[in-house]
Amino acid sequence: MNIKRLSTRQPDFHKQLDKLLAFEETMDYQLDATVAAILADVRTRGDAALLEYTRRFDRMDVQDSSTLELSPATLRTAFNGLSGPQRAALEKAAQRITAYHKKQLQESWSYTEPDGTLLGQQVTPLDRVGLYVPGGKAAYPSSVLMNALPAKVAGVRELIMVVPTPDGIQNPLVLAAAHLAGVDRVFTIGGAQAIAALAYGTGTLPRVDKIVGPGNAYVAAAKRRVFGVVGIDMIAGPSEILVICDGQTNPDWIAMDLFSQAEHDELAQSILLTPDPAFASAVAQSADRLLADMPRRDIICTALENRGALIEVATLEEACAISNRIAPEHLELSVENPQQWLPSIKHAGAIFMGRHTSEALGDYCAGPNHVLPTSGTARFSSPLGVYDFQKRSSLIQVSARSAAILGEIAAELAYGEGLHAHAQSALFRTDSP
Amino acid sequence: MNIKRLSTRQPDFHKQLDKLLAFEETMDYQLDATVAAILADVRTRGDAALLEYTRRFDRMDVQDSSTLELSPATLRTAFNGLSGPQRAALEKAAQRITAYHKKQLQESWSYTEPDGTLLGQQVTPLDRVGLYVPGGKAAYPSSVLMNALPAKVAGVRELIMVVPTPDGIQNPLVLAAAHLAGVDRVFTIGGAQAIAALAYGTGTLPRVDKIVGPGNAYVAAAKRRVFGVVGIDMIAGPSEILVICDGQTNPDWIAMDLFSQAEHDELAQSILLTPDPAFASAVAQSADRLLADMPRRDIICTALENRGALIEVATLEEACAISNRIAPEHLELSVENPQQWLPSIKHAGAIFMGRHTSEALGDYCAGPNHVLPTSGTARFSSPLGVYDFQKRSSLIQVSARSAAILGEIAAELAYGEGLHAHAQSALFRTDSP
Repeated sequence: MNIKRLSTRQPDFHKQLDKLLAFEETMDYQLDATVAAILADVRTRGDAALLEYTRRFDRMDVQDSSTLELSPATLRTAFNGLSGPQRAALEKAAQRITAYHKKQLQESWSYTEPDGTLLGQQVTPLDRVGLYVPGGKAAYPSSVLMNALPAKVAGVRELIMVVPTPDGIQNPLVLAAAHLAGVDRVFTIGGAQAIAALAYGTGTLPRVDKIVGPGNAYVAAAKRRVFGVVGIDMIAGPSEILVICDGQTNPDWIAMDLFSQAEHDELAQSILLTPDPAFASAVAQSADRLLADMPRRDIICTALENRGALIEVATLEEACAISNRIAPEHLELSVENPQQWLPSIKHAGAIFMGRHTSEALGDYCAGPNHVLPTSGTARFSSPLGVYDFQKRSSLIQVSARSAAILGEIAAELAYGEGLHAHAQSALFRTDSP
Repeated sequence: MNIKRLSTRQPDFHKQLDKLLAFEETMDYQLDATVAAILADVRTRGDAALLEYTRRFDRMDVQDSSTLELSPATLRTAFNGLSGPQRAALEKAAQRITAYHKKQLQESWSYTEPDGTLLGQQVTPLDRVGLYVPGGKAAYPSSVLMNALPAKVAGVRELIMVVPTPDGIQNPLVLAAAHLAGVDRVFTIGGAQAIAALAYGTGTLPRVDKIVGPGNAYVAAAKRRVFGVVGIDMIAGPSEILVICDGQTNPDWIAMDLFSQAEHDELAQSILLTPDPAFASAVAQSADRLLADMPRRDIICTALENRGALIEVATLEEACAISNRIAPEHLELSVENPQQWLPSIKHAGAIFMGRHTSEALGDYCAGPNHVLPTSGTARFSSPLGVYDFQKRSSLIQVSARSAAILGEIAAELAYGEGLHAHAQSALFRTDSP
């Protein structure tokens, strides 16, 4: 395997790094137009359109929209059908994810000023949330837990999952996870038509307030288009891992960590930063040796050769600076005393500290969410969390005494902006008890 | 003035309400294509393109990109040029906005489990933020304060404002507010070209991480398109106020509150809900009488006649239910004991409680933000706040003992998902201390 070797001492290092990181979702206008037509059609014709697209795209023999919903018994049966170890692992993961996310719950707050004016924010859960789960190979039960449990912790009243079942084939692990996570209703629909049904509602599906969860290019384009009608989560790019290692971790461990992102997808990005060139070579050797046993070796090899790199840095400080420039989805600090580097890390979706903290633990069961900002968006966004399923309303209750003072200030500024009614509305309250 | 009267007792009330609320941003494909071309051009050609568009659209005689930046002295001069009362009002507003927003600061947190595993989130400010301020009539100094101060409270390192100055005409109130709010740099550019410059960077402007602030249709389309490259705030629709009144507030006050939204824009929406039909009539009479003195009477009249309504409800409970359906940007609870209704209010941008709390106070100086979710988006989004200028990184440090336990769980789930490298990466750490 030929993984790129770079060094920050190369005169053209920054150019090389830019080239390595370059990734852009190409805008497919044809696909976007198709999606726009599907959205408009489902919005206008509701269930009839939804059934048509489901017959066409998923080759499902559905004539009646009621057949699109799975019963709670179907989900329970899937859960009961898990092997003992699978069930125990899924339950333990759910417990830890729930416990962690409970720490994110935000509470309403307010304070009262000396003259009696009350200010604050009322925090409330979203009312109804839609969760998209892909069909086929990219259908992950862990994703169901990571998206559904924060919504449940937030107190969302109704959580509706959609998952396509092409040719009628269901994924029992996904259904089991939906049962465990307490998903309220499940519909076997997918694609842009499922996003439309969630955003606008049909006779069968109620309209939701926000849509979360990963999907293919059609789903992503549809989510972009309904943004504003409903809330959406981030639109995820390929997965990434950046490992900063001082050279003292077992190179097999680090090679396998790089594999664990690379196996997701040919476009996934795995990068190692180390001040120790001998260690980089050792990781490369480990990678060559370990690859053969990997069932997804072709994907891993393509991803590592095209988008991976082993980069020699001068110091760990420099490694942190490069990490901030990349703003990686996953950052491993595989170093002695990792906490000392935390203040130097400005942008990262999740930070895995210490030699024993493999990124894979975060994907499944450490507790924190595995839905993380990709493609440098950690510069301005955060892991999926309970806060994504809560919203705030400002609270303002001005006392009569305060209204007299604030009214004069507001009127002065309103006149400056040419907004006479604003000024009058404030001034009316300045002289009446 | 002919403001629509409705009653929830009408058999077709819900249909009438839907009709009243119907508002959809029409997608203008021609405009969107123009915006796409401008974005691509500024991205490719940088300052040269930025100068060209600024010459063309703002009729500015700029040959050199350095002339696009205003000096700190220019801002200070604008501030020093304010009248005494204007300056005092702006300063008082800034103080109150800052004090309120400080309560929103989120802190990093973590906890350690009995076996030594640490979990948490590191909260950090965004690094660099762009603030769009419209030129011309819709340029509000209060908007500068409301967008800039939360970013400053969050600790954003660099805040860059862009404001078009068509024909070279500057708005001194806006520049004074920028000085007061501590904006770091100001550029006299606008439109899609300014959004492009902020999102991609040019020789003169550094690339930002998030863009906030209101703008026209070109700016809104440009923000939608750069979403993902940078963060953006909500894309705002027309302003709305919903007043719930028990009939005991001075009808002049309520009429003027309805005016204060209506004067923003012909598409603004002002609605009164009251169980007292005589009060609705009194408000209508007040409106007729007060209109003549309003400099913006034509806008007010158009907005109230086309999109306003006085609605008779059976009870205040019913009023709260209708309010939840509307999810208004501004909600006035002009009733006795307003706090008793708070638990019934599920969706609203800001809630103004009590007869003395005019919405206008919230626009300027009460403290809470005036950038609020419109068009029903309060179902899933929140007022602009300090939290919009902070982001989170998950923290995970697994102890050796915990890695042994969690590694088995992760491996079980990873095998179930067909991700062999994930499983191996976790299992490598289960037997090594």
